[in-house]
Amino acid sequence: MSVPPALTTAEIAQLVQGRLTGPGDLVIHDVAKIEDAGPHDLTFLANPRYARYLETTGAGAVLVSAGTTSNRVAVIEVSDPYASFLRLLELYHPLPSWLPAGVHPTAVIDPTAVVAEDVSIGAGCYVGPRTKIGNGTRIFPHAVIAADVVIGSDCEIRSRVSVREGVVLGNRVVLQDGAVIGSDGFGFAPTPEGYRKIPQLGRVVIADDVEIGANSTIDRATLGETVIGKGTKLDNLIQVAHNTTIGSHTVIAALTGISGSAKIGDRCRIGGQVGIVGHLTIGDDVAIGAKAGIANDVENGAVVSGSPSRPHNLWKRIEASLTRLPELFHRVRKLEAAVFAGTDKDSKRNSTS
Amino acid sequence: MSVPPALTTAEIAQLVQGRLTGPGDLVIHDVAKIEDAGPHDLTFLANPRYARYLETTGAGAVLVSAGTTSNRVAVIEVSDPYASFLRLLELYHPLPSWLPAGVHPTAVIDPTAVVAEDVSIGAGCYVGPRTKIGNGTRIFPHAVIAADVVIGSDCEIRSRVSVREGVVLGNRVVLQDGAVIGSDGFGFAPTPEGYRKIPQLGRVVIADDVEIGANSTIDRATLGETVIGKGTKLDNLIQVAHNTTIGSHTVIAALTGISGSAKIGDRCRIGGQVGIVGHLTIGDDVAIGAKAGIANDVENGAVVSGSPSRPHNLWKRIEASLTRLPELFHRVRKLEAAVFAGTDKDSKRNSTS
Amino acid sequence: MSVPPALTTAEIAQLVQGRLTGPGDLVIHDVAKIEDAGPHDLTFLANPRYARYLETTGAGAVLVSAGTTSNRVAVIEVSDPYASFLRLLELYHPLPSWLPAGVHPTAVIDPTAVVAEDVSIGAGCYVGPRTKIGNGTRIFPHAVIAADVVIGSDCEIRSRVSVREGVVLGNRVVLQDGAVIGSDGFGFAPTPEGYRKIPQLGRVVIADDVEIGANSTIDRATLGETVIGKGTKLDNLIQVAHNTTIGSHTVIAALTGISGSAKIGDRCRIGGQVGIVGHLTIGDDVAIGAKAGIANDVENGAVVSGSPSRPHNLWKRIEASLTRLPELFHRVRKLEAAVFAGTDKDSKRNSTS
Repeated sequence: MSVPPALTTAEIAQLVQGRLTGPGDLVIHDVAKIEDAGPHDLTFLANPRYARYLETTGAGAVLVSAGTTSNRVAVIEVSDPYASFLRLLELYHPLPSWLPAGVHPTAVIDPTAVVAEDVSIGAGCYVGPRTKIGNGTRIFPHAVIAADVVIGSDCEIRSRVSVREGVVLGNRVVLQDGAVIGSDGFGFAPTPEGYRKIPQLGRVVIADDVEIGANSTIDRATLGETVIGKGTKLDNLIQVAHNTTIGSHTVIAALTGISGSAKIGDRCRIGGQVGIVGHLTIGDDVAIGAKAGIANDVENGAVVSGSPSRPHNLWKRIEASLTRLPELFHRVRKLEAAVFAGTDKDSKRNSTS
Repeated sequence: MSVPPALTTAEIAQLVQGRLTGPGDLVIHDVAKIEDAGPHDLTFLANPRYARYLETTGAGAVLVSAGTTSNRVAVIEVSDPYASFLRLLELYHPLPSWLPAGVHPTAVIDPTAVVAEDVSIGAGCYVGPRTKIGNGTRIFPHAVIAADVVIGSDCEIRSRVSVREGVVLGNRVVLQDGAVIGSDGFGFAPTPEGYRKIPQLGRVVIADDVEIGANSTIDRATLGETVIGKGTKLDNLIQVAHNTTIGSHTVIAALTGISGSAKIGDRCRIGGQVGIVGHLTIGDDVAIGAKAGIANDVENGAVVSGSPSRPHNLWKRIEASLTRLPELFHRVRKLEAAVFAGTDKDSKRNSTS
Repeated sequence: MSVPPALTTAEIAQLVQGRLTGPGDLVIHDVAKIEDAGPHDLTFLANPRYARYLETTGAGAVLVSAGTTSNRVAVIEVSDPYASFLRLLELYHPLPSWLPAGVHPTAVIDPTAVVAEDVSIGAGCYVGPRTKIGNGTRIFPHAVIAADVVIGSDCEIRSRVSVREGVVLGNRVVLQDGAVIGSDGFGFAPTPEGYRKIPQLGRVVIADDVEIGANSTIDRATLGETVIGKGTKLDNLIQVAHNTTIGSHTVIAALTGISGSAKIGDRCRIGGQVGIVGHLTIGDDVAIGAKAGIANDVENGAVVSGSPSRPHNLWKRIEASLTRLPELFHRVRKLEAAVFAGTDKDSKRNSTS
């Protein structure tokens, strides 16, 4: 989509402030994974434990951590090889910028909306009454932003996102395609005639640097706010129910569901398909294994797995035991035969089960 | 978004037909949760067990059930405090009505569609051939209603909903953003050349007062109908497969999947991330715990949990036992040592495992 | 929606190259399930084990396999009754074709896009720069196709699908409503200031005859490709993470999540709500039970269930044992009482637990 740069190994070493060992005039055409890289590609070795790859890689040059050497291939020693690699990755593969600046003529912008000068708003987008959109924000075709929304600067809102009335997004928020922010919470009061909808009058507040995955749904609060903290990243197809609070720098994998009024701390790592019961408190720095079912509060720093969840090590021991459970029944039967032989009809009957 | 009312405690007592104890001239500016309420807020106490909150709440007035008193704060005794609270909630926070009446000029309405006079259809909506839309129905920007659809009165269809060809919606149906009603069922016949699509020719019929959550998907029947009964409420990201029938007044939490041709009764309560195998019958008044896996029919009134599911009490006992399972292996080893000591090589070998 | 045909039993027998026993002049108005069929309906009996239905069906005629007879109802013997039934199903209920040929005037087609002559593109669709769309492809209202996409022939792209930049679709690919193809992979590098987004620069390649369900999400690769092989069918609300490869003719049920860089073979059958950990290899012809959690590689032809998954038969034995686990604790307590009676305080204490 664009002409890639063609830097030499010496130029790259200078760019990443690294120390080059090997030829400085090798032209690098692309970056690649260490097992795929060819003679004009640059790759990286983040973990010195995999140094053996240096013996076999076909790469022209490798970003390595200080102290790693090779007499086969040019190496550039840097403090963080992966970070340097990402920088070059962005240089060689600039993010597609096919969305033109400005507002597409088919976008419908309510006359009371306040849209910064330098936004991009694609074909068929809708921006509702009194909504405010900050500098540098890019909204891809067919996103729908309802009334009274506040969107910060440099956000990226992908196609077919719904942002519902009253939602607040910070700066640099990324919403992948189809995400729904601010749908009604699932609140119904039982009555003799059936469930009566509890009006969902609160909002959703999303802090700076949050990313929400494709087709994920974040419900608005009944009253008050559903909150996603700074730097938190949610994968695809995640459900966050009304009045939930998620802290900062927490990551959550796909298909996880968080019930209403849960409170999740900072820097948690939550696996895929996890379920969290409503009104619980999950502390900071908690790690939750994939598919766990959380039915009780979890302390700061805990590592839990299983459904219902248990401390990870206990869960592992239980799972190891389970494999031998059918055999344990055999062993107990044998014991019963030895201990109760001919003496206890009742036990005998049990032991046939 | 609108000027809130400012009623006095006496006026509120009259409105909810309650008995006021305390000052009648206190002006109430808002409603709030009992722990958040300030001196000009009204709150409620639904459960007399939490009467201690009356000692600490900062609220100006509290809706309580008959017989609850306070000498700290004005109380209004009513028959159902929560129902009265909801009524005032709607009064103080009328639902946002930012969608203007009428059909937005950018909406595309097929000339053969039959649309009632008093609908609201937002920017960029699509309404297909021969589709009928009833009185008072509101369709938010970018909903897509295909051909031959019938939509009743007073429905609320949120942005980016898909309603596919031939779907029938009753009255007062609410579809949250991104819901898909009538996608093709997942039916493929194996052939030597690969799977061949089985045409999905049936439809989806949704009864009155149903709500479907954001990004949930309801597949059309292969032949015949997929049915959602009156007053049933589905949360976000739920999958309902082809030819499934769900009864009336059933509630289902997020990320639950119901396989094809399942039959679910009335007044069931189904937790989040539940999976139900196809062709099963779930009775009326069944409660299914979150994350349960249902692989067999469930009787009326049953309470089941776990995957595969078991009666809830048995499941609880098993889960309690599991925590002590590693220890049970120890105990059996000890028994084996005592009983078989020096007598049975085979048991000894087992006991080291 | 269209006038159904009215063939006689003799005409149908000729059409499906079958052998008719019974009247040839019976007019068939529709096809139906064997339990629902009336005197002018045709039905089928695929499995001779259900031959008793021939005694009770109200159908006018039944497609049966060779050798099945009836003296109650007309039967047409064919080699594959279900395949013949599907053929008649399509004849009597032709797939709705309400989408007109050509490009709707409200669709926005970038001038650099290359669109074949005989496509259908519905109202409000968006087709981005340099995108190519092949012959006979039908794109329903409000699908969004980004830049540099390649779409083959005879695809069916339903409303509100997102196809992101650089995605490649083969021929006859079907995407149900709301599916997202090519959303950013969930890749973030931890830094002292929080997670830094790893640019997601790869693409998604979908082979011929693939179907992707409603609101499913397929992430683009970080570098390289996320691949879905020929004839593979994905149900609704499925997550496929970045750099995953799925083979040919594999079927996956709803709400399953596949983590990054997993490799799944050909002809697998994967149940609903399954979770697959990243970087694993699942062989060919693998069957995975619903709700399984796969944390290790799975061999060709294996059948696994449970979370964490185990060979299906072991899993079944463990689940059967679990039902009797609380009772096993009783039995061990009894053994301890008999063996250690009065001799070991420590065991006694254990036995009260």
